[in-house]
Amino acid sequence: MDIYSSYADNIRSAIANDRKSGNINLSNFSGIGGVRNDLQKAEARTRLLSETQQVIPLSSLQNIVNELGLHPNFNQQLGQHPDFVHLKNTGHIEKHYIHSMFIDIKGSTHLFKRYEPETVLVITNTIQRAAIHTCMIFDGYIQRLHGDGMFVYFGGKGQDPAEAAKRCLTAAALFSYFVKNDLKEIFKEQGIETIFTRIGIDYGKAEDVVWAMAGMAEISEITTCSLHTSLAAKMQMHAESNGIVVGDNVKMLVPLPFYSTVCSRPGKESNRYIFTNPEDNFYYTQYDFNWLGYLKSLDYIATNPILGTINLKRRSQEVNAPKNPDNLKSIAAQSKPYLQ
Amino acid sequence: MDIYSSYADNIRSAIANDRKSGNINLSNFSGIGGVRNDLQKAEARTRLLSETQQVIPLSSLQNIVNELGLHPNFNQQLGQHPDFVHLKNTGHIEKHYIHSMFIDIKGSTHLFKRYEPETVLVITNTIQRAAIHTCMIFDGYIQRLHGDGMFVYFGGKGQDPAEAAKRCLTAAALFSYFVKNDLKEIFKEQGIETIFTRIGIDYGKAEDVVWAMAGMAEISEITTCSLHTSLAAKMQMHAESNGIVVGDNVKMLVPLPFYSTVCSRPGKESNRYIFTNPEDNFYYTQYDFNWLGYLKSLDYIATNPILGTINLKRRSQEVNAPKNPDNLKSIAAQSKPYLQ
Repeated sequence: MDIYSSYADNIRSAIANDRKSGNINLSNFSGIGGVRNDLQKAEARTRLLSETQQVIPLSSLQNIVNELGLHPNFNQQLGQHPDFVHLKNTGHIEKHYIHSMFIDIKGSTHLFKRYEPETVLVITNTIQRAAIHTCMIFDGYIQRLHGDGMFVYFGGKGQDPAEAAKRCLTAAALFSYFVKNDLKEIFKEQGIETIFTRIGIDYGKAEDVVWAMAGMAEISEITTCSLHTSLAAKMQMHAESNGIVVGDNVKMLVPLPFYSTVCSRPGKESNRYIFTNPEDNFYYTQYDFNWLGYLKSLDYIATNPILGTINLKRRSQEVNAPKNPDNLKSIAAQSKPYLQ
Repeated sequence: MDIYSSYADNIRSAIANDRKSGNINLSNFSGIGGVRNDLQKAEARTRLLSETQQVIPLSSLQNIVNELGLHPNFNQQLGQHPDFVHLKNTGHIEKHYIHSMFIDIKGSTHLFKRYEPETVLVITNTIQRAAIHTCMIFDGYIQRLHGDGMFVYFGGKGQDPAEAAKRCLTAAALFSYFVKNDLKEIFKEQGIETIFTRIGIDYGKAEDVVWAMAGMAEISEITTCSLHTSLAAKMQMHAESNGIVVGDNVKMLVPLPFYSTVCSRPGKESNRYIFTNPEDNFYYTQYDFNWLGYLKSLDYIATNPILGTINLKRRSQEVNAPKNPDNLKSIAAQSKPYLQ
């Protein structure tokens, strides 16, 4: 079962209906066939766009929700984290831990070279939607949309920090897999430069995270002021194409054999620390996260031994014994290189 | 009349109440004097934070509103541009010109070295507030807050594109002046690394700008999908410290002697074009905008000939003849270098 096939199909349909690139030979996706006039294409686009605006995951991702018995809360509002929304218009603050994740989608500007802006809109909205849905099913809270990415919190009151961090890493890993595999395939078919993602994640402990309202009135959001929120955004800029970089706090909270220092990457020797404050003797290390190794270590993920691709393991499939933690190191070693 | 003195005073008060840096000798700002205990400092901070959440500009900036007879609409909501909010949850699109401005505030992470996060919050909120107010009084629409910056639209239905562009450039120039002068002064007093701004602006014509909803339900915003919105964000990254970079569309719409190609900067020789598409024979040039020269060319701005600082010219001051457009070139020449 291909986790993101429904999203990939939508993007292919959008490309098939583009009036600039003339992809009429692609127009047989999603049951839409034949040569179509501009009005028909515009109608198809409206239908696709409406579909990208639905809050429920598309069917291929919904399978994960069903298989894992997840209970995501889709009733969210940007910049109004439910645990801290009472701070709005008060001038008050609250201190509470949080995981901050910044997802950046790079290369989408190239799409304007090939497609009309209406098509770029459906493509980028669909990618963004895949990210939103992936984060939401693992209880992420969508804080902010950027044109080419988003800012997501994991954790909150009554949530175990380590469990929230694992859910965050899982969502980041699955979305990276979508971009590195499904999206890459689509743009290879089209012969254009691919899109890639860069993700930064950090864990701010309660004493280091101030929750408060930024802005004023309805030009506002409930947000965190924290070194570790700022560092998550900075670490994202140090990530490789389709890479995830995490801060030392994450590594300490979720010890796994899937971290390696950013400075062990060729050319990044001087980037061990994402932040230093010698006066306080504070040196904060950033790590590459081997997300493919992590995915393969999950009980519900099946690996195709020939293609190296991953899929959702169905309960109807042969049930393997849970993966042995002792094997994690060998999974980590086998899963490099995991980037494009 | 110093345009941003009220904002600068608030930042000094926040620093005076910081418990980490121990700035007790600064505590005589805003009438708050003497050594204070932690509870008093926390109360002072709540008061400052409440004040940063007011929607009306602080008094020093309000003078511009009064002097110029502006009628800003402070009743805004992030990501819901009133001219296009009817597109929400429809799947429909609309094409309409817009100016996109990305303001980035760099260096704020350094503040965590010196101050507790509560103080960083008040400082960054106050800077953000100065930017929000400056944009709003010139009819900008605040689309999105970032932790360290914002995304603002200028223009809309029934608004002349050239007039909207001039208002956008004015807001960008005034805010840059605040950061380069008032903020720099504060952080120099504190002996810490300064904060600086980088701004990117571009004009997307109606045929190149698609308005639509991104995201879904309340995890959404009304936004533009346009090459020129994407390029504004990219040009911001090419700006110097306290610099403004604009696209060729802006220069063509508002011809002024204050533009110079980014590639004429040492080290940027290969950065003439922010975007090229040889297949369409499309080469798009980016320009540095000499914002100090532009400010000095405005009728209501007075220049201190000794300090080189600018101020709002009051009606009660000697009324000069409007500045002669023939003099603009000499103003431009005198206003370099305008960066830090």
